Amino acid sequence: MAEKWVFLFEEVEEAEKYVGGDWEGVRSLLGGKGANLAEMTRIGAPVPPGFTVTTEACLAYLSRGEDVAGAVLEQEREAMNRVEELTGKKFGDPQNPLLVSCRSGGKFSMPGMMDTVLNIGLNDETAQGMIALTGNERFVYDLYRRLVQMFGSVVLDLDDELFEHALDALKNRVGAKADTDLTAEHWKELTEEFKQITLSKEGCAFPQDPYEQLKLATEAVFKSWNGKRAIDYRNAAGISHDLGTGVSIQTMIFGNMGWNSGTGVTFTRDPATGERKLYGDYLLNAQGEDVVAGIRNTKPIHELEQDLPEAYKQFQEICDKLEHHYREMQDVEFTIENEKLWMLQTRDGKRTARATVKIAVDMANEGLIDRKEAVKRVKPADVDALMHPMFDPDAKSAAAVEGKLLSKGVNASPGAAVGVAAFDADLAEEWGKAGKDVIMVRPFTKPDDVHGMLASKGILTSEGGATSHAAVVARQFGVPCVCGASEVSIDGAARQFEANGQIIKEGDWVSIDGTTGEVFVGEIPTVAPEFEEQTDLLILLSWADEIRRLQVWANADYPADAERARSYGAQGIGLCRTEHMFFEEVRLPIVQRMILAKNDEDRQSALDELLPMQRSDFEGIFQSMDDLPVIIRLIDPPLHEFLPDHDEVLKTVLTKRIKQETDGLAEAEDLLAAIEGLHESNPMMGLRGVRLSIIMPGLVKMQVRAIFEAACNKAKEGVVVKPEVMIPLAGHVNELKVIQPILEDVANAVMEEKGITVEYKFGTMIEIPRAALTADEIAGIAQFFSFGTNDLTQMTFGYSRDDAEARFLLTYVEQEVLPENPFQSLDQDGVGQLMQIAVEKGRGIRPELEVGICGEHGGDPSSIAFCHKLGLNYVSCSPYRVPIARLAAAQAALK
Amino acid sequence: MAEKWVFLFEEVEEAEKYVGGDWEGVRSLLGGKGANLAEMTRIGAPVPPGFTVTTEACLAYLSRGEDVAGAVLEQEREAMNRVEELTGKKFGDPQNPLLVSCRSGGKFSMPGMMDTVLNIGLNDETAQGMIALTGNERFVYDLYRRLVQMFGSVVLDLDDELFEHALDALKNRVGAKADTDLTAEHWKELTEEFKQITLSKEGCAFPQDPYEQLKLATEAVFKSWNGKRAIDYRNAAGISHDLGTGVSIQTMIFGNMGWNSGTGVTFTRDPATGERKLYGDYLLNAQGEDVVAGIRNTKPIHELEQDLPEAYKQFQEICDKLEHHYREMQDVEFTIENEKLWMLQTRDGKRTARATVKIAVDMANEGLIDRKEAVKRVKPADVDALMHPMFDPDAKSAAAVEGKLLSKGVNASPGAAVGVAAFDADLAEEWGKAGKDVIMVRPFTKPDDVHGMLASKGILTSEGGATSHAAVVARQFGVPCVCGASEVSIDGAARQFEANGQIIKEGDWVSIDGTTGEVFVGEIPTVAPEFEEQTDLLILLSWADEIRRLQVWANADYPADAERARSYGAQGIGLCRTEHMFFEEVRLPIVQRMILAKNDEDRQSALDELLPMQRSDFEGIFQSMDDLPVIIRLIDPPLHEFLPDHDEVLKTVLTKRIKQETDGLAEAEDLLAAIEGLHESNPMMGLRGVRLSIIMPGLVKMQVRAIFEAACNKAKEGVVVKPEVMIPLAGHVNELKVIQPILEDVANAVMEEKGITVEYKFGTMIEIPRAALTADEIAGIAQFFSFGTNDLTQMTFGYSRDDAEARFLLTYVEQEVLPENPFQSLDQDGVGQLMQIAVEKGRGIRPELEVGICGEHGGDPSSIAFCHKLGLNYVSCSPYRVPIARLAAAQAALK
Repeated sequence: MAEKWVFLFEEVEEAEKYVGGDWEGVRSLLGGKGANLAEMTRIGAPVPPGFTVTTEACLAYLSRGEDVAGAVLEQEREAMNRVEELTGKKFGDPQNPLLVSCRSGGKFSMPGMMDTVLNIGLNDETAQGMIALTGNERFVYDLYRRLVQMFGSVVLDLDDELFEHALDALKNRVGAKADTDLTAEHWKELTEEFKQITLSKEGCAFPQDPYEQLKLATEAVFKSWNGKRAIDYRNAAGISHDLGTGVSIQTMIFGNMGWNSGTGVTFTRDPATGERKLYGDYLLNAQGEDVVAGIRNTKPIHELEQDLPEAYKQFQEICDKLEHHYREMQDVEFTIENEKLWMLQTRDGKRTARATVKIAVDMANEGLIDRKEAVKRVKPADVDALMHPMFDPDAKSAAAVEGKLLSKGVNASPGAAVGVAAFDADLAEEWGKAGKDVIMVRPFTKPDDVHGMLASKGILTSEGGATSHAAVVARQFGVPCVCGASEVSIDGAARQFEANGQIIKEGDWVSIDGTTGEVFVGEIPTVAPEFEEQTDLLILLSWADEIRRLQVWANADYPADAERARSYGAQGIGLCRTEHMFFEEVRLPIVQRMILAKNDEDRQSALDELLPMQRSDFEGIFQSMDDLPVIIRLIDPPLHEFLPDHDEVLKTVLTKRIKQETDGLAEAEDLLAAIEGLHESNPMMGLRGVRLSIIMPGLVKMQVRAIFEAACNKAKEGVVVKPEVMIPLAGHVNELKVIQPILEDVANAVMEEKGITVEYKFGTMIEIPRAALTADEIAGIAQFFSFGTNDLTQMTFGYSRDDAEARFLLTYVEQEVLPENPFQSLDQDGVGQLMQIAVEKGRGIRPELEVGICGEHGGDPSSIAFCHKLGLNYVSCSPYRVPIARLAAAQAALK
Repeated sequence: MAEKWVFLFEEVEEAEKYVGGDWEGVRSLLGGKGANLAEMTRIGAPVPPGFTVTTEACLAYLSRGEDVAGAVLEQEREAMNRVEELTGKKFGDPQNPLLVSCRSGGKFSMPGMMDTVLNIGLNDETAQGMIALTGNERFVYDLYRRLVQMFGSVVLDLDDELFEHALDALKNRVGAKADTDLTAEHWKELTEEFKQITLSKEGCAFPQDPYEQLKLATEAVFKSWNGKRAIDYRNAAGISHDLGTGVSIQTMIFGNMGWNSGTGVTFTRDPATGERKLYGDYLLNAQGEDVVAGIRNTKPIHELEQDLPEAYKQFQEICDKLEHHYREMQDVEFTIENEKLWMLQTRDGKRTARATVKIAVDMANEGLIDRKEAVKRVKPADVDALMHPMFDPDAKSAAAVEGKLLSKGVNASPGAAVGVAAFDADLAEEWGKAGKDVIMVRPFTKPDDVHGMLASKGILTSEGGATSHAAVVARQFGVPCVCGASEVSIDGAARQFEANGQIIKEGDWVSIDGTTGEVFVGEIPTVAPEFEEQTDLLILLSWADEIRRLQVWANADYPADAERARSYGAQGIGLCRTEHMFFEEVRLPIVQRMILAKNDEDRQSALDELLPMQRSDFEGIFQSMDDLPVIIRLIDPPLHEFLPDHDEVLKTVLTKRIKQETDGLAEAEDLLAAIEGLHESNPMMGLRGVRLSIIMPGLVKMQVRAIFEAACNKAKEGVVVKPEVMIPLAGHVNELKVIQPILEDVANAVMEEKGITVEYKFGTMIEIPRAALTADEIAGIAQFFSFGTNDLTQMTFGYSRDDAEARFLLTYVEQEVLPENPFQSLDQDGVGQLMQIAVEKGRGIRPELEVGICGEHGGDPSSIAFCHKLGLNYVSCSPYRVPIARLAAAQAALK
């Protein structure tokens, strides 16, 4: 025996030794479930005895097959001997039979994605022994038919419907409404029928040998690692395909042994809000899958105190112990067999973004973890989710008054979602990929539905509770979800649902509020959530601020944006785009006059009109950012962007010519000539940015005058202004050598006129590859650098973003030609290499050089981590992403 | 005395010691003229005694002024004492006066660009002494009036016309036709008049103190370094402005002492053809400037043998000695005073491209220099000139028959030029800058005219010989020139000339043949010179081939280009652009059908039609390049380039709609929709190159099939084919990982079908900055790299070439924002840095990686030198530049 492939739960120390003492290694080896069962065993929780087949065995089996299966079985037999010792029962012994479950469990939880077989060890003989022991024939044949059914569907890959139909047919025949109406004889009959289904469909008799059952079930779990569901899930969740699953074999405990038995699933804190209280469901006289599938309506966990007070008390204590042990909120499964509590599983609980933040903050305040750990535990995407829109409260009230409220279900995953109803996962996926906003509507969801759930804006089910499949998956992926909306009556065949007397057809608009559980017909407008009211988030971010080195600035063009950014924690404005102001209705005609001016005088007169407008914009921004730096970028885009569309003007000219209308023809022809005169084949790489400033300095001189007039005016009012003038698109140091002194002269002239001096800087964007490559020269002139990673990515890849995204970039990402869209997440290998060159060369010349990033990447967490590593001073992003960036910057510092 | 600012000619060893023993240093210190006078003195040539004021003194004077002038004068006085000793005369001594000249001379020759004053030392007293000594009053007053005139114009900056007018007035008054008709009394009178002019215009009497004359003349020469003419010339010739000029003070020798005196300028070999014979002019009884200015018609040098046989013999010997000493063709000035020969100057002679090559080859064959030195001496621009067009001999004969031959002058600078006549330098410059081809027509040229000469295609003068100003400058800058075309009668006021009975007005077309001296009216067609007939060039290039490491390949799209390239010495095809073939008339409609195809079947059918056409192109190229590598680039441009112009189609559609013409409207609308569907805002960075191949692989599969079918077919005929398939525009290694295997499969399938295997490679262009930055990854797949520096320059600078050159790039170069157009000469700091990264990373992974360059820079000498330094395998350029590249590559290896 070359390798140890099986570890008893009690062998946790051996497993640790086997992997070299590392808990992550134990999780990799045994899978999360197996490792936690072993760990729970170690800390003395009541865990039914069992053992785990390792992920190494799984991977070996998947590559080498039958030989491995045989070797694994040998080790399973040995382990089973110890389980028999511990339980006093014996696997396959007709007198005192041991039954086991066989469950999958990878390193990372993939709920419901892989297979499980229960009640292994039952056969015609041991069933008789069980009956003799329990005196409950009905119970035993229910177990037996379940084993045959799961074996058929999981191991033999038969359609589960075959078994469900047979059950329904029997119920019809005997006039039973529910399973509970069926007698022992019925279950026995059904067990035989299930065996026949197995034999007739697969030509394979249900194996009577318990070890044969165990072997085949183990192999089936191994194989389920590579099932389509599992692969889709891992792709969506970003889990590696190379890990393999562990297989945990565990003594069966029966929650369906009568009304002093039961089973449940519980979170140690509320996974929706994070509140510190047990949150979950249980059913008396039921097996675990009854709870998870959401088929029978469950009872909330606190009612167990009435039903089985002793067990509840012990359960509470164990939950507390587990949380203290794992220092994380736990998601546990338990079963009570004849009033005795057994813990079947524990794992870190999935939760909403809101709960993630609250639990992290609470646990830090409780002393369970430190603040750094709290900051680490919240994902930037969680903060993003908290910045997401919610329904406008007034609009929601109005909708309710208008009778648009259809139902109220379980608020299973928070957030507001609006979309058209789709009644199956495939359609939801198809519509979602086509760009439609979709709400997927199902009675309940199964692992097969995940692809549709991921493509939907929201999920609505009529059945199941807060721990149902739909709820768990939705929370994990941040998709709003309302579960168990029992007034919603779905007619899958007619592809519609009825609720509150209204019929909603496929494609009709629906709005769901995952935070409250409400379901509306129609589209309800959404609003941004109040950042200031999210107390836990504010605390967490204040801790993040203590940790991070990287500053977070914001891109803001208007005073309102700047104010919002500041309220979200921005420490400066990294990019104020002066030309955005030019597009405003009253200004555009003046800008056009400036462009079309036939002489310097006309041009100057237009510029003179623009000056006070720009000045007043800047005054507002300086006011908002009192005592913080504001980087203002001089005009960047090519001038043609401010003129009317060429084809439209051409059309006007041709029409007038052909119809011989002279009225306005000359003007239209002039305009057309001007537009054609400004035409460029690749305007992105043409006359724009600093090039435009050098060819036509009047415009930027006006802008610099406006900046410094505004700065001086505000400074006189006592505002502390810190203007930084940014010259875009420099590629050669000489461009700065030419233009920067001209602009500094303007600045100094204004300060002299105003009789006041303000602190200021002149600097440049680094967005042309050549600027990065020659950053040492550039830094000789520029007092700061700001990476314009949008353009830098365009030039470094040779992609025009608009063209690339429309024509090939999405195909590239889909076909994995590119790992991701480089305009969303910084290409560290290529663009990042240029950034590193620029930082090193720039700081080599000017060690105190202020370097930041103002491209879209400034709000992307992995890009932020890279910027931290590069030693930038700040990232600048859209105001809404400032909180995310604050967290990401802290996490980068903790790495 | 802190610094030594004056060196006697005999102090050449001291000068060497002063600069540390280096001849270049001596030239820097004394200027070319001063250094050569000293050197000639050392080797025993008869040099009139004198001394040189250093360039260091000049620079010191230009920055510090008067103090320096005084200190310099002190040292000049001391040196003068020694000159007095050597000559037995005394500066300012009325009894035996010493007269000196004062001439400029920078490190690099700038003929006529700076100032000269002759006959210094004459005053009212010494003039009397000279008369007593020579007994020739007329001669002495001619000298004196010349001194006053030069002093006035050079030192006092008076308009020379003042003096010329006075001379003309006198001649009119006394009825003299030529200067020779004037008597001693006339010259005396003129001398007094000139003194009055000086006094009246400048309020400054002509100084009678000889040392005051010397001091002011020296300062005037210093200042002339920064005169406009000199600065323009240095800008054009690429000479640094920081060098300063030396000032050589030398005993006057008089070629105008009578008919056994004379003066001349001679080249030791023919500066037009390179033939080994003395080539020059002289005048008896004349001063040097009479020869150079081209005012009097000179005699060819070999006639001196009859006039003054002894002096001629000595002159021949000295010329030979100088050539052996300098190991270069010399341009010498000499004067004979009473049959005694004096050498006044020697310097390396300027020459035509043709002469440069012949002299280099001859001197190597004569053993004067070695072959490496011969290769070093020819500039790539010289080879370029030899590849330039000449007149079509048949067309020229026909023109002569038709009476279009206007005149035959001196063939002063070879080459054919066609342009419109312009009668002054300013107009020539204006028209030339506006893009017109101009022939500048002048009686003779002066240093002030250089800016117009540089802007002209050719130069025509009616006066002056092979060593006139026009001839020297034209040869240096490779501008065709015909001098002294005496039948050409220019009427500057009427802005026309008359010749052969025809009137040619400003703006009329003229053709000049600088190789033969012929002048034609009208435009004569030109033809390419026969490369194979240029024996000296072929020899020189064969020597270059022995020296260079870098291979030279050519860019060729058609078999005829490939053949020409091979005949010019190309060792492979570095770039065959497959899509150029698509633009041919018969093919374009098929290409358009392929692009517009609505389904795969139609597209494939168009591709099937293109296949045999492409195959046959490739067969021709493989045939031409038997046994040499051929790199074929797969389709690169975006598809819209093959469709009609958008605006034209839009106009058609709009016109038809407005006029309600239904005929052809639907087709036009379809076409418009297709064109708009392919529209990109920045097509250069859009769907093209490998991106197109990945999205639409059918097209490149057809191309690869055509390549390999052609290769196999030719291989079967016994041709050794070496196809290399080049994938353009890769930016990420995955692009190659996706497409290269698909294409290799096609290649292998074809070879299997054909039953023959050929050697081949697959590789990529490096033209996207990211490809250079990640060249290690790229080299894992690509078997060769070829730098596409056109695109790489576009992306690295963020310049769209078309837009940049039209809108700002030329302004950038003019205003020195950029040192040069980066599309013409490789930007080594930026683009070159990326190339270096790519070579290092690529070879790091694949040490044998073949790396070349196929952008336009492959034919630019300084870029070739950079490619050599980077260790590239080859440069690939247009066939016509292959010879230039062969030379440049050898010179790079010699550096």
